[in-house]
Amino acid sequence: MNVNDAGFAYPHRFSRQVPPPAPRWAGNARYNFIGGHNDRALVPTEALIAAAATALRRDGADLALYSMGHGPQGYARLREFVAHKLGRWRGIEAVADDVLITAGSGQGIDLINQVLLEGGDTVILEEFTYQGYLNKLRRLGVDIVGAPLDEDGIRMDALAAILADLKRQGTTPKYICTVPTIQNPTGSIMPLSRRHELLALAREYGVPIFEDECYADLTWGAIADAPPALYALDPRQVIHIGSFSKTLAPALRLGYMIADWEFLSRVIAIKSAGDSGTGALEQMTVAEYFSQHFAEHVEELSRTLKDKLDTMVEAVAREFGTAAEPWLPKGGIFLWLKLPDQVDVRKLLQPALKAGVAFNPGPEWTVDGEANKSRLRLCFGSATKEEIREGVAAFARVCREETGIPQISGNIRHAARGAS
Amino acid sequence: MNVNDAGFAYPHRFSRQVPPPAPRWAGNARYNFIGGHNDRALVPTEALIAAAATALRRDGADLALYSMGHGPQGYARLREFVAHKLGRWRGIEAVADDVLITAGSGQGIDLINQVLLEGGDTVILEEFTYQGYLNKLRRLGVDIVGAPLDEDGIRMDALAAILADLKRQGTTPKYICTVPTIQNPTGSIMPLSRRHELLALAREYGVPIFEDECYADLTWGAIADAPPALYALDPRQVIHIGSFSKTLAPALRLGYMIADWEFLSRVIAIKSAGDSGTGALEQMTVAEYFSQHFAEHVEELSRTLKDKLDTMVEAVAREFGTAAEPWLPKGGIFLWLKLPDQVDVRKLLQPALKAGVAFNPGPEWTVDGEANKSRLRLCFGSATKEEIREGVAAFARVCREETGIPQISGNIRHAARGAS
Repeated sequence: MNVNDAGFAYPHRFSRQVPPPAPRWAGNARYNFIGGHNDRALVPTEALIAAAATALRRDGADLALYSMGHGPQGYARLREFVAHKLGRWRGIEAVADDVLITAGSGQGIDLINQVLLEGGDTVILEEFTYQGYLNKLRRLGVDIVGAPLDEDGIRMDALAAILADLKRQGTTPKYICTVPTIQNPTGSIMPLSRRHELLALAREYGVPIFEDECYADLTWGAIADAPPALYALDPRQVIHIGSFSKTLAPALRLGYMIADWEFLSRVIAIKSAGDSGTGALEQMTVAEYFSQHFAEHVEELSRTLKDKLDTMVEAVAREFGTAAEPWLPKGGIFLWLKLPDQVDVRKLLQPALKAGVAFNPGPEWTVDGEANKSRLRLCFGSATKEEIREGVAAFARVCREETGIPQISGNIRHAARGAS
Repeated sequence: MNVNDAGFAYPHRFSRQVPPPAPRWAGNARYNFIGGHNDRALVPTEALIAAAATALRRDGADLALYSMGHGPQGYARLREFVAHKLGRWRGIEAVADDVLITAGSGQGIDLINQVLLEGGDTVILEEFTYQGYLNKLRRLGVDIVGAPLDEDGIRMDALAAILADLKRQGTTPKYICTVPTIQNPTGSIMPLSRRHELLALAREYGVPIFEDECYADLTWGAIADAPPALYALDPRQVIHIGSFSKTLAPALRLGYMIADWEFLSRVIAIKSAGDSGTGALEQMTVAEYFSQHFAEHVEELSRTLKDKLDTMVEAVAREFGTAAEPWLPKGGIFLWLKLPDQVDVRKLLQPALKAGVAFNPGPEWTVDGEANKSRLRLCFGSATKEEIREGVAAFARVCREETGIPQISGNIRHAARGAS
């Protein structure tokens, strides 16, 4: 009788805040350069099977209890692993009881916002930043001030000026949000001296720091080839979050938060009222696998990612020539690019999708979208090297067809195609 | 240096809406008669290991993609299983594309509330109801009207009067929330004729129905020894949710929603902005296990639960005599009791916990808490039969010590203890 076709009887009863409907899922693009996807070949399937079996044999019966009876902070073995990992590689002194497991770092962001923010508050973000922060903050009606970046992260002179300016207006920001280790989207690592300067400024102006280290384990070369986390340098000032999405698999929804108990206990109260715990089978499996294989896993992953980055940088140079200015990342899964000012990447979105290419337009990844309409983010985590080469070439073709840029350059394949 | 002891530097920057801090987790009570815990012995550990292995071998590489590339509605095989299950046992015609997988039914509740509710709205709940609904609605500033229940669920005469009364006040409730099949906490099943009456009233007054069937698979005897779901009878009027917490394991965070696309597409838009998908390993494993073992699993579980219910009913009769009036449930994991009016169960909470007994006080499970201070809910899902007998006896001792009720009755063990 196809009852569903008649439609919901009461659309007029929706809340005034309801968003537009989601479209039906159309699948990922062929050349999928968006989002935090990872390398399919590096999901350790057999090792995860073994880890799940070991963990289920030992603790499976406890699945009958909410949170396995471990309480709202999460599965004890995963919290122990996080504390160990943060101590070993990020300089953080912590025990399992200091750690909260979250359903991805996205939930951590929401929880931090719920503890601190009300509509009309002001926060400081990095000028180029994670789209998720921006979307969440805009829905909350929070004012966002962008702090300028260079190749070492937030510029401290600029941040000091912003804080002084806000103070003159009588405004204390609710937090400074930073991704100091593999910044999103520039891929920079903030040096130690600058971390100390940042903490000093935060102390001077009385502003908490929200530190997101979801990419920190994916530095080129050795794990955590980076200064200690900001949290390690001053735990009273900093709320620290991280994720297993990037180091293992984003379809597993696991992240973590570490913060002083006075803060974390508020987060736990809000989380418990909402979700009745984080998925236990994923916690068990990841705890078991990473307790044994973390270092070797992220080292292999980082090597593979660096190889893909090199492929993407070469492809961008070959296809765009000097028209594209990349920021060279020190780790992670993305390349942040600038095209000439006259290119508005928003106008390329649909033509690129038609050619099978999905990319992140700069205006969605920057505090001042209009000023950054010629920037874009290309993720290389999930595409194969062949797909990277083909996809960047396809994107360059679309860009040239739509904007005339890149002009035909020294690149032989392009010149030939342009002349045919 | 014990930096954490110094405390978070900025507690004065918390939002005014921040809740009180969560306490440190103290563990579950020895006689744990609260919450939707399940039977530890019935977690099918080896079958889950096999299911996880099969699913990971087939689809594990897709964990590298957000939502495994299946889009925001969830893992396709789990949605297919839900559609099949709802068709086979709940009379619902649906395909996988009509189903949204959620992180437990709690997320489903939050999402429905976000689509429909604003502060100051009115909703109708069953007078005895799930604590989670009440807590969430109170946080949203929504007015709650309780509809009287009898052994067949909501009384239609009373509901008609409430709707007429609200209409006279110019109020249309945003929804009528009901658990028609194994009502929480009374365990009733609404007969078919009353389901049709409910839908007719909802149509007459233009009120959506929010149907929660999280216990519907756990009827005594055969699965779904109950009339079709309300959604099956009129999909345009009803938003339907369910859960795997009760049929499999609450530490796995998996539930589902089915609703007309006009509604569901709004839910998906909100969910996607918040969580980046539901945990995939749990979806994969449950889809694989339940696609093969659902009927036998819930039949064994229901038999075990019925046996425990009988043990609890006997224990309550033995220890409380006529002082306790139980509602005899037709399925599920809890027993709803009334003690004499002079007993305020809130005053028993702490003494009972000291004796190792945790129970759900009626005031937290009723729209009008003060009027229901002598009611309580005892869950029997996780306790063994021995624990049920010991725990109910311990609870009766506490109750007698605190209130003089139950008086020493024909029960020999109690009489002997009372006389010693």
